Amino acid sequence: MKVYGHPMSTCTRKVLTVLAEKGKKFDFVLVDLSKGEHKQAEHTERQPFGVVPALDDDGFKLFESRAMCRYLDETLEGTKLTPATAKDRALMEQWISVEQSYFTPAAMKVIVQVIFNPMMYGKPVDEALLKEGRDATTKAVRVLDKHLEGKDFLVANQFSIADIVYLPYIEYLFAGKQGDLITDHKHIASWWSRCSERKSWRIATGKETAA
Amino acid sequence: MKVYGHPMSTCTRKVLTVLAEKGKKFDFVLVDLSKGEHKQAEHTERQPFGVVPALDDDGFKLFESRAMCRYLDETLEGTKLTPATAKDRALMEQWISVEQSYFTPAAMKVIVQVIFNPMMYGKPVDEALLKEGRDATTKAVRVLDKHLEGKDFLVANQFSIADIVYLPYIEYLFAGKQGDLITDHKHIASWWSRCSERKSWRIATGKETAA
Repeated sequence: MKVYGHPMSTCTRKVLTVLAEKGKKFDFVLVDLSKGEHKQAEHTERQPFGVVPALDDDGFKLFESRAMCRYLDETLEGTKLTPATAKDRALMEQWISVEQSYFTPAAMKVIVQVIFNPMMYGKPVDEALLKEGRDATTKAVRVLDKHLEGKDFLVANQFSIADIVYLPYIEYLFAGKQGDLITDHKHIASWWSRCSERKSWRIATGKETAA
Repeated sequence: MKVYGHPMSTCTRKVLTVLAEKGKKFDFVLVDLSKGEHKQAEHTERQPFGVVPALDDDGFKLFESRAMCRYLDETLEGTKLTPATAKDRALMEQWISVEQSYFTPAAMKVIVQVIFNPMMYGKPVDEALLKEGRDATTKAVRVLDKHLEGKDFLVANQFSIADIVYLPYIEYLFAGKQGDLITDHKHIASWWSRCSERKSWRIATGKETAA
């Protein structure tokens, strides 16, 4: 199994977390974003939108990180990251969709201002756009925080793909000194501590190495 | 079973298409967007982001249209709208994710300019934003068109949720006289004809009534 990606890429990290939960060995093929390799034909044949990651499972090719997470969970041995009942699976899909449609577009507006623009392009922070992103993020965080009251994880009292898909963006909010967006809301703050301490996430982000 | 939605809402129409494919009877509860009912507490308790649709299946509450489509397909009798193998399911998820992350944000930029702004707010078209939306839509359409060469449907030679999620946005591109974005690409144009002629889609959009 080959994963084409970059260790700092948010979507690559979702897939690495699933693979670490499963204890699966795989080849990691670096797509060097700093050299523009993601926009070159060799990669756009794998991923036509020119982003990372992409998967090659013994000739079966797949892109889109959330699809990869579901596929790896379904086909690999190890900890199940999808709940057992149709209703709980539906709720997992609901929270994945909230991440994809509400949380991430908002959080990325913040992350572009405080991480990508200064680090990659030497651009100063646009305070108006940062505020717009923070306000939109807070709106989604409030919904998540209310839902997480009295719960360890988003769905079915188990760590699932629904939890995993949020983690890379929250990590970058903290890296960009915007962690108050999370810590100001106690239920999501507690959930973030719980998820970010997991060995799989620590492996996916290079804080620990797999055994 | 109750579906809270609006007959003109893109996301409501995805769910109505699934229900029509299944031949399922349900109660449709109108959330009157023109009166702002979607932003009132009665609805935001069902859907915390204040959009439509939302589902109540005998007390089980769910929001996010794509999650609803997967849940209804899994739990209802009738035509299966999800492929049978793990690999084909992964590809279905890949194309749903392409819709959610690339196609729809682009198509919605066009639809806002040519449908929502003029009809709902009396605002003129911003030609620069329209061009931006058209260019982004074309980029996604080219990927879809290449994939659809020689295929009847996006995945596994069967009509699936992956096809359904694109239809409401394409319908509105045509309604806003931007159908060239589709008809200029022959494989996606042929796929659109095939999908939009389906009885379920015609029922979901009020062109036919259920038997």
